[in-house]
Amino acid sequence: MTTQMEMAKRGQPTEEMKAVAELEGVPLDKLMRLVASGRVVITRNVRREHVRPTGIGEGLRVKVNANVGTSSDLCDPDLEVEKARIAVHYGADTVMDLSTAGDLNAIRRKIIEAVDVPVGTVPIYQAAIEAAAKKGSIVDMDEDDIFGTIEKHAKDGVDFMTVHCGVVKEIVEKLKQHPRWMGMVSRGGTFHALWIIHHGRENPLYENFDYLLEIAREYDITLSLGDGLRPGCLLDATDWAQVQELLVIGRLVRRAREASVQVMVEGPGHLPLDQVEANVKLEKAICDGAPFYVLGPVVTDVAPGYDHIVSAIGGAIAALAGADFLCYVTPAEHLGLPMPEDVREGVIAARIAAHAADIVRLGRRALEWDEQMILARAEGDFDPERARSILERVKPRVPGTCTMCGRFCALRLYGHYFRRKKCS
Amino acid sequence: MTTQMEMAKRGQPTEEMKAVAELEGVPLDKLMRLVASGRVVITRNVRREHVRPTGIGEGLRVKVNANVGTSSDLCDPDLEVEKARIAVHYGADTVMDLSTAGDLNAIRRKIIEAVDVPVGTVPIYQAAIEAAAKKGSIVDMDEDDIFGTIEKHAKDGVDFMTVHCGVVKEIVEKLKQHPRWMGMVSRGGTFHALWIIHHGRENPLYENFDYLLEIAREYDITLSLGDGLRPGCLLDATDWAQVQELLVIGRLVRRAREASVQVMVEGPGHLPLDQVEANVKLEKAICDGAPFYVLGPVVTDVAPGYDHIVSAIGGAIAALAGADFLCYVTPAEHLGLPMPEDVREGVIAARIAAHAADIVRLGRRALEWDEQMILARAEGDFDPERARSILERVKPRVPGTCTMCGRFCALRLYGHYFRRKKCS
Repeated sequence: MTTQMEMAKRGQPTEEMKAVAELEGVPLDKLMRLVASGRVVITRNVRREHVRPTGIGEGLRVKVNANVGTSSDLCDPDLEVEKARIAVHYGADTVMDLSTAGDLNAIRRKIIEAVDVPVGTVPIYQAAIEAAAKKGSIVDMDEDDIFGTIEKHAKDGVDFMTVHCGVVKEIVEKLKQHPRWMGMVSRGGTFHALWIIHHGRENPLYENFDYLLEIAREYDITLSLGDGLRPGCLLDATDWAQVQELLVIGRLVRRAREASVQVMVEGPGHLPLDQVEANVKLEKAICDGAPFYVLGPVVTDVAPGYDHIVSAIGGAIAALAGADFLCYVTPAEHLGLPMPEDVREGVIAARIAAHAADIVRLGRRALEWDEQMILARAEGDFDPERARSILERVKPRVPGTCTMCGRFCALRLYGHYFRRKKCS
Repeated sequence: MTTQMEMAKRGQPTEEMKAVAELEGVPLDKLMRLVASGRVVITRNVRREHVRPTGIGEGLRVKVNANVGTSSDLCDPDLEVEKARIAVHYGADTVMDLSTAGDLNAIRRKIIEAVDVPVGTVPIYQAAIEAAAKKGSIVDMDEDDIFGTIEKHAKDGVDFMTVHCGVVKEIVEKLKQHPRWMGMVSRGGTFHALWIIHHGRENPLYENFDYLLEIAREYDITLSLGDGLRPGCLLDATDWAQVQELLVIGRLVRRAREASVQVMVEGPGHLPLDQVEANVKLEKAICDGAPFYVLGPVVTDVAPGYDHIVSAIGGAIAALAGADFLCYVTPAEHLGLPMPEDVREGVIAARIAAHAADIVRLGRRALEWDEQMILARAEGDFDPERARSILERVKPRVPGTCTMCGRFCALRLYGHYFRRKKCS
C-alpha cells in the first residue's frame, strides 16, 4: 500500500488527486506538489469506498467538519446517524464520530455507512471507555488497548483520526505545578494526562509514534494531531502549555511527512479576537504549513447558547489568516449534546465563516456564488427553505419586493430612474 | 441651549458626561476631551427625559443599535413597540424607529415612550412617504417637507437622526453614467437620488447643511451622516461611489464640529472580509476619528436567513478595527420585516460581536465578564434562559456535567488529579 503523499512525491497522480484538482479548480501538478510537501492532505482510508474526494489545505476551499456521537447521558445511535446525514445535507465536508456510549464499533460503522464524506474518529475515547468498563478506570488502559483500537478504526475505513501525541509527560507534570484557569477541556487530552500522572510514564502515542505512523501509512489514514492542551477560556489563551504542545507537534509533523504519512494539526479553542491570526501564523510557521484544523476559535466565553455565532466570528478570522479546516460548534456547545436542529445551525454558521474567507483566499473561484445571488437576491443558497419561509411569512403586496420595505423598496425605486450593471 | 460638545469644549461637565464616565470607567476629563473633539458623542436630545446616558466612540464600549418600525406590508405599531422592548431587554443600547407605514408621528412617540435608551430616526422616510400620499410621489417632497419633518422629530425628543447629506448631485449623476451591480440599497439614499434626478437640483440636506446644523444644535441631536451609497453586494464594495460619498461626509463632519453639533458617520454595508478593517481605518482618517456606525458589514451575499451571523463576523472585525457602533442585522434581513424572535437573535449576535471586540479594545474592563464565566461555565449571560433550556433538555446523570460528555467530562476528570488556578 502507498499513501497519497508517497504517490505525490513519486509524481504519480491518483484518482483522488485528479478528482480534487478538478473539483477545486487547481492544476493537478500544483496540487501534487502541495500533497507531496504535506501542505494539502487528501483524507481517504484505502479501505473506504464511495467517499467524496476531499482535499484540505493551502489553495483549496476551507472545509467544515461536524461532530456527532453518543454520550453516556444520551445514547441513541439512530439519532447520531440522522445528525450525520443532516450535517452533510447542509454542507459539512467531513463528519467525526465522537461516540462515548453504546456499542461503539457498531455506531462507528453505521455512521461510515450513512455518509459519503470522509469520517474521522478519536480512538482514545473507545480505548479509555472500554478500559473503564472492563478494568475499572480510564487509566487502566494499556498500550495494547490504545493501538488495538486504532487498528480497529483503521480497518473499518476511518479516514482521519485525532491523536493527542503532543500531550507529553513533561508538559503534564509542569501543569500540576503551574495550574491554568480552566485546566484541560479536551477529553482525549485529559484521558492521556490522567494516564501519564497515574502511571508516571510517557504518553504511549508519543513514545510509540513510529508504530502509529506504520498503521497510518498502511491505511493512508490522515493523522490529526490533537490539541489536548488547547485553552478552555480566554484567560488561558496562547499560554505556555498550548504553545509547548504545538512545538512538540511541529516535530511530529516532520516525522510523519518523512514517513509519507498525511498529517494535519488541530488548534484552539478559546482565543481573544486579536490572537486568532497570530495563532494561525504560529501553527503554519512551526508546523511548516501543515493544514490547520481549528475548533472555533471561541472569541468570548459568555455566550453559551450562541457559541455557533461566537465560533463563526473566530473561524472566519482564522480561515482568513490561513486555517484550512473548521470544526463546527453548535448552539449546544458547553451545554449539552447537540440535537439535529443544533447540527443544522452549527454547520451553516461554520460554512458561512469558511465561505466568507474563501471569497478572499480564492477570489473569483469562490465569489461566483455571491455574483449569482445578485441575480436573485432573495434565494438563500445555504438554506433556501429557511429563506423562503421568512420571505413568505407575510405576503408582500408588490411582487418582487419583501415586507421589510414594501412598496418603498430601494432596489425597485432605483430601477425607475437608474440602470444596474448587468451580470454576464 | 448648548450641546454636550459645546459644554465639553468649555470644560463644563454635564450630568450625562459624568454618568457616561462612571458607567464606562473612563476618567471624566478624558471623556470631556473626547466629546470636545468629536471622537465621542453622547446621544441625547435636550427634550428627552429618562434616557440612559449613552456615549458612543473611542475608548468606550462598542454599542449596538436595533432597528424597528412598520412597513406598508406589515403595519402593527404594538408589534414594533414590543420589538423595541425586546431589543432593549437583550442588550440593545439604542433603538431606531424606521417606520414607513401607519400614523408615523404616533408610532414614533410610542416607541420613544416605551424605551429608556436613545432613539434614532430617519426623517426623510416620513417626508417622502407623506409627499407620496399627499402629492402623488416621493419626489414631490420639497425642502419644507424635509426640514419640517426633521423639526417635528426633534421636538418629539429624537436623540439621533440619519441624514443622507452625502448623496450629492455630482455622485448621483455620475451613477447614471456608471452603473453599479446592485445600485443603491439605502432607502433614504434612494429617495434623495430620485429627487435629485427628477428635479435636477442639489440634495436639500447638503445645500442647506447649515440650517440642519441649527436644528441639531438647538436640540443637541446627534447627526448620523448616512451612507446612502453603501455597497449592496460584495462586487460594489469600496467602489468610487461609496468612497466619494465618504469624502463629502468627511467635510461635513468638520462643519458640524465647528458648530458644536455632535456627529457620527454611517458605514457599509456589503464588504469582503479583507476590506472591513480598511474601511474602518479609511473612515477614521477621512472623518478625523468621528464615531463610526456600521451596518453589518455583510461579508457574503449568499446567506439570507443567517445574515445575523454574517454580520456578527463583519461587525466583530469592524469593531476590532475601531468601529464604535454596530447596527444589528436580523435573520430576516433581505427577506422581510423582522419578528420579535428575529430581533432577539439579531441583538444577541451583534452584542457578541461588540463584546468580542471590547475584550481587546478595553482589556480587563470588558474581560471581567468572561472571567466570571470561569466560575460558572454554563450560565449564559447573554440569554440565560436559552442556555438553561439547552442544559436541561436532557438531564445529565452526573451533577455538574452536561450531556455532551456525560461522565467523561474533561473538567471533572481533570479535577481528580489537577488543581485549577483560582479566581480572585
